[in-house]
Amino acid sequence: MPEPVATLDEIRALLRHLPDPDAAAGGAAATREAQLTKPAGALGRLEALAEWLATWQARHPPRLDHPRTVVFAGNHGVAARGVSAYPAAVTAQMVQNFISGGAAVNQLCRAIDADLRVYEMNLETPTADIVEAPAMSEEECARAIAYGMMAVEPGIDALAVGEMGIANTTIAAALCLALFGGEAADWTGPGTGVAGAALDNKRAVVAAAVARHTPEMGDPVDVLRRLGGLEFAAMAGAILAARMGRVPVVLDGFCSAAAAAVLYAADPRALDHCVAGHVSAEPGHRRLLERIEKPPLLDLGMRLGEASGATLALSILKAAATCHAGMATFAEAGVSGPAG
Amino acid sequence: MPEPVATLDEIRALLRHLPDPDAAAGGAAATREAQLTKPAGALGRLEALAEWLATWQARHPPRLDHPRTVVFAGNHGVAARGVSAYPAAVTAQMVQNFISGGAAVNQLCRAIDADLRVYEMNLETPTADIVEAPAMSEEECARAIAYGMMAVEPGIDALAVGEMGIANTTIAAALCLALFGGEAADWTGPGTGVAGAALDNKRAVVAAAVARHTPEMGDPVDVLRRLGGLEFAAMAGAILAARMGRVPVVLDGFCSAAAAAVLYAADPRALDHCVAGHVSAEPGHRRLLERIEKPPLLDLGMRLGEASGATLALSILKAAATCHAGMATFAEAGVSGPAG
Repeated sequence: MPEPVATLDEIRALLRHLPDPDAAAGGAAATREAQLTKPAGALGRLEALAEWLATWQARHPPRLDHPRTVVFAGNHGVAARGVSAYPAAVTAQMVQNFISGGAAVNQLCRAIDADLRVYEMNLETPTADIVEAPAMSEEECARAIAYGMMAVEPGIDALAVGEMGIANTTIAAALCLALFGGEAADWTGPGTGVAGAALDNKRAVVAAAVARHTPEMGDPVDVLRRLGGLEFAAMAGAILAARMGRVPVVLDGFCSAAAAAVLYAADPRALDHCVAGHVSAEPGHRRLLERIEKPPLLDLGMRLGEASGATLALSILKAAATCHAGMATFAEAGVSGPAG
Repeated sequence: MPEPVATLDEIRALLRHLPDPDAAAGGAAATREAQLTKPAGALGRLEALAEWLATWQARHPPRLDHPRTVVFAGNHGVAARGVSAYPAAVTAQMVQNFISGGAAVNQLCRAIDADLRVYEMNLETPTADIVEAPAMSEEECARAIAYGMMAVEPGIDALAVGEMGIANTTIAAALCLALFGGEAADWTGPGTGVAGAALDNKRAVVAAAVARHTPEMGDPVDVLRRLGGLEFAAMAGAILAARMGRVPVVLDGFCSAAAAAVLYAADPRALDHCVAGHVSAEPGHRRLLERIEKPPLLDLGMRLGEASGATLALSILKAAATCHAGMATFAEAGVSGPAG
C-alpha cells in the first residue's frame, strides 16, 4: 500500500509518476484469448476486459476472487440550499443502513461475494458551502485523499468505488462544470428526484459556486478542494492508490466519475486502470463518461449511488476473468478452427 | 410439467391458452419496492425486473436460487451451402466441449451457479436444406418442440435459453425474413465471421429459402417447420413450457430470439414472461429485439450463442431478486423519506 500522503503537493507528485500498464501480462491474455473455443471476438467486451484486468493486475491469468466495494459518506454545506429531495440527516441514516445490512449495496455485495467497506467521513461536520467558500482547506482535502487511499489493501483484486452524501450530485455537477466547462444545466440533473423550480435552484447553485471560485481556481486538485467534498477526495485517493497497488477499479455513478474526472483532468492516463461500471439515469453522468472516455458496462437506468452500479458490474468482470481462465483452447478441446 | 405434445395442432392449441400474468404477485412486489430504502425508481430496471419475476414466477418475493441454462444443438442441411466460417462438424465438437466443461457457457454457469443442460439433437442427421425443402416434417417439428418442453422441470426459477449449431444464423435470418418481411440483407449478418462474397452468398441463400417456401407458407408454426431447425423448435418448446410452468425466461442471442419470435408472431403476449438477456453484435438481433419489443439487459458486443449472454444476464436478474428481498424498508431502517 502507498504511504499516506500529507499534502496536496505530494498528491500532485504521485499523479506525475503513475505506474504504467503491464504490457507483458496484457499480451499473455491476448495470446490466450485467441486460442479459446469461440470465434475470435465472440465474447465481445468480456475479451477486452480479461486483457484489461491482466494489464492492470499485472498478472496472467487475471483473477477476481477478492473484489472490494468501498462507500465513502460525506455531508455538504451546500445541502442547506435545498438542492436535494432528502434532508441531510439521511446520509448518517443510510450509513447505519449499510452497517446493518439493509441497503441495496449490501445485497449486491452478497450476491457477488464482494467485501463491503463503509467509510463515514465527519458526517456531523459538513464541508463549507461551496457557494461561499472552498469546501475544504488544503489540509482537510489532503487528509481525505489519504483516508481514501487506505481503502486499498493487499489481497484485493478489484475495487468498486462509490459514495453516499445528500447533495452530492450538486457537488459532482460543480466539479464537472469547473473541469470541463459548458453550462450548469449540462451537468445538473434531478439527483434523488428534484424537479421544476427546485431543479432550477440546483442549477443556479452550481453556477454560483463555480463563478465564486473561478477567479482563483488552480489545477484539478485545487478544483477538488474548492468544489468537492470529503467523499470525493476519498474516492480520488482510492482510485489513485489502486493504480499504485495494481488494483483495477470499477467506477459507479455520477459522483464516482466526477471524483475520477479530477484525476483525468490532471492526466488522462490516470484512469487507464478504471472502467465505468454503468451509466446512470442522471443525465450528467452519460455526458461525463463520454468526456473521460469510459463507455459503461451496464445501462440499466440505475441512479442510486452507494456503489450499487459498480458492484453489479463486478459480475461482468468476474465473468470475463472466469471465461478467460477456465475455457478450453481449440487444441485442448479438439474443436476445428474456421474452414477458410 | 406440461404433457409432451404430439402434433403441431396441439402446440397451436397451447398458444391459444397461454397462462395470464399473476397480477397479485406483481402488485405485492410493486408495493414492497416503493418502501425500500432508496429514492423511488433509483434501482432502474432492477425494480421492474423484480416485479416481472414475481409476476411470472407467480410468487412474492421472487427468488432466483435455481436458474437453469439450456443449450440445444442441431445441424442444418443448409450448412453445405458455405454460409458459415466453420465446418458443420464443429457442432458436435462443441457439444463435447460443453460436456467436458471447456466452453464459455460452462464458466458462466459456474459463476452464477446455474444448472447447465445440453441437448444434442440428431447431429448426425441435419435437417433438410431449406433452399430446397421444408427443414422438418410436421412430426419432426412437433417432436423437437416437445423435446424442448421437457427442459422445464419443477424447481427451476429461471431459464436461460440458447443453442449451438453451425449455420444457424442463416436459419434465424430466414425465420425473421419470413415472419416480419424486409430484405434478406436486413436480417443476415456475419454470424461466426463470414464477410465479403461469403456474406453475399449467405444473403442470397436466405432470400432463396424464403422465396422457395413463401407460396405455401402457413402460420408462424409452419414457418418454424419450413425454415427452422431442431434446436429452434426445441427453444420454442422450452419457452412455451416455461410459460406454462411459471418459469421466467432469459433469451440469448439472434437464434434464441428468432425461435421466440415464432411464438410472438402467433401471439405477442406469448413472450411476456421473457426478457432479452443481451443484444449481440449480430446486426439482425438488434432489429429483431425492437420488432419483438424486448429491450436487452446487456449490450457487450457478444456474439457467441450457446446461451452465454443469457447466462451472464442471470446475474442481473439475481441482483434484482436479491435487492428486492433483502433490502430494508424506510420504516425498518429508520431512514427519513423525501423532505417534501
